[in-house]
Amino acid sequence: MAEVEKHHADATTFSKTITKSELYETALVSASSLFDSQTFWPSNLANAASLCWYAFEALEMRVNWSGFYVSSSCLKTKPDGNEEMLLLGPFMGRVACQTIKIGRGVCGTAASTKITQVVPNVLEFPGHIACDGDTMSEVVVPLVDSEGVVRGVLDIDCLIVNGFDEVDVEFLEKLAKLVTDACEW
Amino acid sequence: MAEVEKHHADATTFSKTITKSELYETALVSASSLFDSQTFWPSNLANAASLCWYAFEALEMRVNWSGFYVSSSCLKTKPDGNEEMLLLGPFMGRVACQTIKIGRGVCGTAASTKITQVVPNVLEFPGHIACDGDTMSEVVVPLVDSEGVVRGVLDIDCLIVNGFDEVDVEFLEKLAKLVTDACEW
Repeated sequence: MAEVEKHHADATTFSKTITKSELYETALVSASSLFDSQTFWPSNLANAASLCWYAFEALEMRVNWSGFYVSSSCLKTKPDGNEEMLLLGPFMGRVACQTIKIGRGVCGTAASTKITQVVPNVLEFPGHIACDGDTMSEVVVPLVDSEGVVRGVLDIDCLIVNGFDEVDVEFLEKLAKLVTDACEW
Repeated sequence: MAEVEKHHADATTFSKTITKSELYETALVSASSLFDSQTFWPSNLANAASLCWYAFEALEMRVNWSGFYVSSSCLKTKPDGNEEMLLLGPFMGRVACQTIKIGRGVCGTAASTKITQVVPNVLEFPGHIACDGDTMSEVVVPLVDSEGVVRGVLDIDCLIVNGFDEVDVEFLEKLAKLVTDACEW
């Protein structure tokens, strides 16, 4: 009997009949499997961004950007005299700002505080940086490695106010930890 | 009078009333502007993947993957004794294979020959690597730097046979050159 061939892309096809928690559980299992023995951060972050995007799509959430900024310490050679900043990494969505100062905007605040930022309405966040004027709410989770060093942030934008609840945030924090631990920085 | 604020994301909003050549011309102008003074390859490749994706979407082409594989020479530290290979980089689309051997599949062939591979039907390409079983045609453009070194490949997949014509290929080759020249590898 012919067996149906499995492809990497199948990891982003989710059942429509499961609960949100079950879907996130499935996504995290897929993530673990994808990151297994893969240490190159661009590969893992790119697959993680895609996994989030299609999980949110299956949940019919109106997410318009799902991706990463990485710390400039990931550069092979650090530019002399330049302060540490966040640089655009792999993402799904429309073209985005390439550099963000640590401490600035929602991403920069997550990086400087090492605390997840949940912003129900970006217009009310002081110093919010708009890469896309249509974004209304945002979650940013810092990528903190086992030594406490911030390696980047996972950034998710949504077209509606109050786009994320605590179940979403818990999923994103688990995914951020999985991917951070898998990568060689 | 209030001026409409411009955002990075606007670079991926294309007019529906222009010809394909005009749309590609616009996309290349946006690309030049996005890459200006940006040398970090993950940022530039991520924005380039997004720009392609939304250009093809505006043209109603059935592109299901738009992104990059990079040469393992981009790693900060190269694993001892490991042969050069292609590693998954930034992309738009579903989760994909993380590593490809140079010379294997469409991507590996573009990297080893330094010649653009246009594959009207992937099922007829010897040794085709299927990350997504739905892909039917593919274009892969090598990223060759000014010294002739292959830094990676730009890979575009389409859900229909014969998905790309010579105008598409010309655009992708111009974009590949722009992004390769902009980056510090």
